[in-house]
Amino acid sequence: MRQSKLFSKTLKEVSQEEKSLNAQLLLRGGFIDKLMGGVYTFLPLGFLVLKKIEEIIREEMRAIGAQEILMPVLHPKENWQKTGRWQSFNVLFKLKGKDKKEYVLGPTHEEVLVPLAKKFVFTWKDLPVAVFQIQDKFRDELRVKGGLLRGKEFIMKDLYSMHPDQKNLEQFYKKVIKAYFKIFKRCGIKEKTYLTLASGGTFSRYSHEFQTVCPFGEDLIYICQKCNLAINRDIKPKIKKCPNCGSKKFKKGKATEVGNIFQLGTKYSLPFDFKFKTREGREKPVVMGCYGIGLGRLMAAIVETNHDAQGIIWPLEVAPFLIHLITLKSGKKKIDQKIQKEGEKTYQVLQKKRFEVLYDDRKEKSPGEKFVDADLIGIPFRVVISENTLKKNSIEIKKRSAKKAQLIKKSSLIRFFHQYVK
Amino acid sequence: MRQSKLFSKTLKEVSQEEKSLNAQLLLRGGFIDKLMGGVYTFLPLGFLVLKKIEEIIREEMRAIGAQEILMPVLHPKENWQKTGRWQSFNVLFKLKGKDKKEYVLGPTHEEVLVPLAKKFVFTWKDLPVAVFQIQDKFRDELRVKGGLLRGKEFIMKDLYSMHPDQKNLEQFYKKVIKAYFKIFKRCGIKEKTYLTLASGGTFSRYSHEFQTVCPFGEDLIYICQKCNLAINRDIKPKIKKCPNCGSKKFKKGKATEVGNIFQLGTKYSLPFDFKFKTREGREKPVVMGCYGIGLGRLMAAIVETNHDAQGIIWPLEVAPFLIHLITLKSGKKKIDQKIQKEGEKTYQVLQKKRFEVLYDDRKEKSPGEKFVDADLIGIPFRVVISENTLKKNSIEIKKRSAKKAQLIKKSSLIRFFHQYVK
Repeated sequence: MRQSKLFSKTLKEVSQEEKSLNAQLLLRGGFIDKLMGGVYTFLPLGFLVLKKIEEIIREEMRAIGAQEILMPVLHPKENWQKTGRWQSFNVLFKLKGKDKKEYVLGPTHEEVLVPLAKKFVFTWKDLPVAVFQIQDKFRDELRVKGGLLRGKEFIMKDLYSMHPDQKNLEQFYKKVIKAYFKIFKRCGIKEKTYLTLASGGTFSRYSHEFQTVCPFGEDLIYICQKCNLAINRDIKPKIKKCPNCGSKKFKKGKATEVGNIFQLGTKYSLPFDFKFKTREGREKPVVMGCYGIGLGRLMAAIVETNHDAQGIIWPLEVAPFLIHLITLKSGKKKIDQKIQKEGEKTYQVLQKKRFEVLYDDRKEKSPGEKFVDADLIGIPFRVVISENTLKKNSIEIKKRSAKKAQLIKKSSLIRFFHQYVK
Repeated sequence: MRQSKLFSKTLKEVSQEEKSLNAQLLLRGGFIDKLMGGVYTFLPLGFLVLKKIEEIIREEMRAIGAQEILMPVLHPKENWQKTGRWQSFNVLFKLKGKDKKEYVLGPTHEEVLVPLAKKFVFTWKDLPVAVFQIQDKFRDELRVKGGLLRGKEFIMKDLYSMHPDQKNLEQFYKKVIKAYFKIFKRCGIKEKTYLTLASGGTFSRYSHEFQTVCPFGEDLIYICQKCNLAINRDIKPKIKKCPNCGSKKFKKGKATEVGNIFQLGTKYSLPFDFKFKTREGREKPVVMGCYGIGLGRLMAAIVETNHDAQGIIWPLEVAPFLIHLITLKSGKKKIDQKIQKEGEKTYQVLQKKRFEVLYDDRKEKSPGEKFVDADLIGIPFRVVISENTLKKNSIEIKKRSAKKAQLIKKSSLIRFFHQYVK
């Protein structure tokens, strides 16, 4: 992609109401745009990051045997009345059609998933089974939080698992925890992300959240200093020692929730009469679990934990591009033509080898402006072609996370980047 | 994917209200499920087809230089008041939040795109530029049409282009027509899809639709027998001879719209005061085009034009899988064990070579039941392992579109399929 053609541009400053760091950096870098409070557009760079995150989640969900589907945003009122959540779910967006029928904009999908699964799950042979989707969700939040952290409209991966019994659910639940940590590792936030006990368990005593420690987090967690299990502020008063290892030493930290998982048990099977026939021919309600990851939240958490004063430092697997190729003008016309030519050539070569490259080919920008943009956007590698590199028949490479740049021979460029791509 | 683990199942029959062929076949094959009138879930098989279609569209949009973004579903009322469509757009879904603010569920995105583009487009240097998204759309249709053809909620690719003048728009408009035919070719419906003159042009006299001829089409088009340009029923009374070649011979045909393209001119630039500075320093409104493809509609049109009495015949590029591997039981225990073992081995080998395989490993199903399901689901190649093939040390391959099967040596299996995958 040529930066001169990029739809979005970096911004010098953004509105003062955007207090959170992730929103500041994502807006300034041209990753997202705010349509209104809690509702954002993903711009080309942000969309690329979103797709990378989506693909990581998809791969790890498939790896534990979950099948992808896509359920609608519009739900019929009746389904939500059946579970009582038409009344009790307090951030439900409701609307009425011209046909006078009432609808819900799905904030979660148990009310659609369970009646759907009832059409295909009949006996023990059909269990366990797990399906997931990556879909827009809607919540009528009065207080929207900074940037992508809590919005009225947001993208979620929601996974639903169905089991013959509690034991089978627990086995799968453990698998999901492992899969989530794989996802967070690939997204570069695992080191700061903690499995956290929280309220809201229906069948089990507690639910689990995945909380990423960061200064702008809206939650407060207590991390066991011995085993790393964390406890959410909400339930900490009731818990004196770590339920996992017994230690009493905790460290307090602000954190933001990037995922949550619930053992639902039969909470949603019962209202929809979702049963299966056991091997012995008896009828039993299906035991369920549900598991969410907010993709925007995850992106926000990645930014909150991967940046410096100059801008974002995207982890390799979620970066919009691998390489930010930059030509620097010298001010001398003939040399600038040579630099431009070398830039074009390098861009073509890298593209041919299928590396993902953002090419800053903008002629009017000064070296300083280009460097500032590159640091803000945060692509993992900056490759510079300048009067200096031409002289030395070399190319300058700087890792975004490193302090210093290095010169390498032009001929080793491809080999250098092959280290970083599978 | 093992068919024994597949979340969805084929159905013997579906509700009588589903009159359209595409809905009948997609529902029976387990591709989609109906949540309510005009609102469908994509099940695992349907989701795979949807992703294939999405990827084809994405590739062809990128090939003409369009950049992908993702705009929200929730729009503020004010934007729709500005264009007058808060009142005039008659299938608008409106809703009110707890904050008493009113919102629109986006049926199209000019009202979001133009104010967004205004933040990044300032001078002639920033033009032309084109952005697209693949996103859920909502229309409060009172009469929903068969299956995926016209719904309250549907997935669309919408592309918006911005230009300095009408001539530049027309150049891009022609590029889009070519790109659309590439998409329809890859989706297997090009032969039956016609560029069609329709009403609704704002800047130009007419707009263009892409209409696919099929028996259940809700539109009527008149196809010029000389040059293949088609005319929509709506405007045919005004048109006596083909505006392209002058011929007066037309053939009538039922058709369904799979895409439409508009030269918007300055219709949406003006209300939002979306201007740019020309090379000469004058201010001029940006000239725009917009271009849609309904992904569900496209899937429906593919089914309507690619099937036989037994079921769907998916074109290669949009098929959920390339290969439907099937083991047939013989009724003799020892031989069945051998067949099962050979099936597993073949499945592993094909997967290792990265072919997309649905493996019908269901032990309780008869050969007849498996064949009926395979024909209904419509995967391009059926590969059978049976007592007969074991005896002959071979494998049976049948193209879904062919009448007869062929036996090939087991050792040539991989080579056979490498013909069909890049």
